Amino acid sequence: MSSTVDRAEIEALFQQLGRAHADRDADAIVEAYAPDAVIFDLAPPLGRRGMNRDSVAAWLAGWDGPIQIDARDVSLTVDGDVAFASALNRMRGRQSGEDQDLWYRTTMCLRKTNGRWRISHDHSSVPFYMDGSYRAAVNLKP
Amino acid sequence: MSSTVDRAEIEALFQQLGRAHADRDADAIVEAYAPDAVIFDLAPPLGRRGMNRDSVAAWLAGWDGPIQIDARDVSLTVDGDVAFASALNRMRGRQSGEDQDLWYRTTMCLRKTNGRWRISHDHSSVPFYMDGSYRAAVNLKP
Repeated sequence: MSSTVDRAEIEALFQQLGRAHADRDADAIVEAYAPDAVIFDLAPPLGRRGMNRDSVAAWLAGWDGPIQIDARDVSLTVDGDVAFASALNRMRGRQSGEDQDLWYRTTMCLRKTNGRWRISHDHSSVPFYMDGSYRAAVNLKP
Repeated sequence: MSSTVDRAEIEALFQQLGRAHADRDADAIVEAYAPDAVIFDLAPPLGRRGMNRDSVAAWLAGWDGPIQIDARDVSLTVDGDVAFASALNRMRGRQSGEDQDLWYRTTMCLRKTNGRWRISHDHSSVPFYMDGSYRAAVNLKP
């Protein structure tokens, strides 16, 4: 099945991505993704292709300081040049003068190309209440 | 990379899952999943382990007729015993006397165990509006 080296490389990539958010470094975030990655983000649209550097930079500019992302219940599966990981993430920081603290689910699917792992699909979301209110469940904790 | 046979087997599994929804067949739905699959569903909680047959049957009982699920923008990646697929799904039917028509994103991660592909991670969601309303975006179209 998976090699220890591949698992370590993928875990290092996730750590780089976490640091890139703490540093609000748009280039380092974009760098973790394949150019044609399928992105299902917290906010609309339903889906798009590729992480756009300008959009990432604009989003980062809305935060007053570091964006702290912590992951739990991480499950990583690797075979050959394909991998996927699921986790519950907590994102904290100050955005437009307000404290943010959000738990959401994330799925990262990766491919190794030219010896290098990159994210080729990112799906991040919160569930919604099916009680007729259609409210996003932004107050859940694991 | 991936074998044509593996791709065909995974596509057949997705078709079985579609038919299982049209037939409202709880057993056939549960059968497509690994027992310890990580489920990030449209509705809370954030995550859970395994498809519970009774929960699936209770959900199916809320529909008045077939549940029609159509997929577009399907992207399937396979290597060895691991695969992942992303798609935009449209779910239609009558639920508690009301017409439903919902576009959502879905990510399916799969593993082949004992020669058989099963879903080991399912992430289905809609995005939410980050305009302060925290409304789930249940009215989007691709």
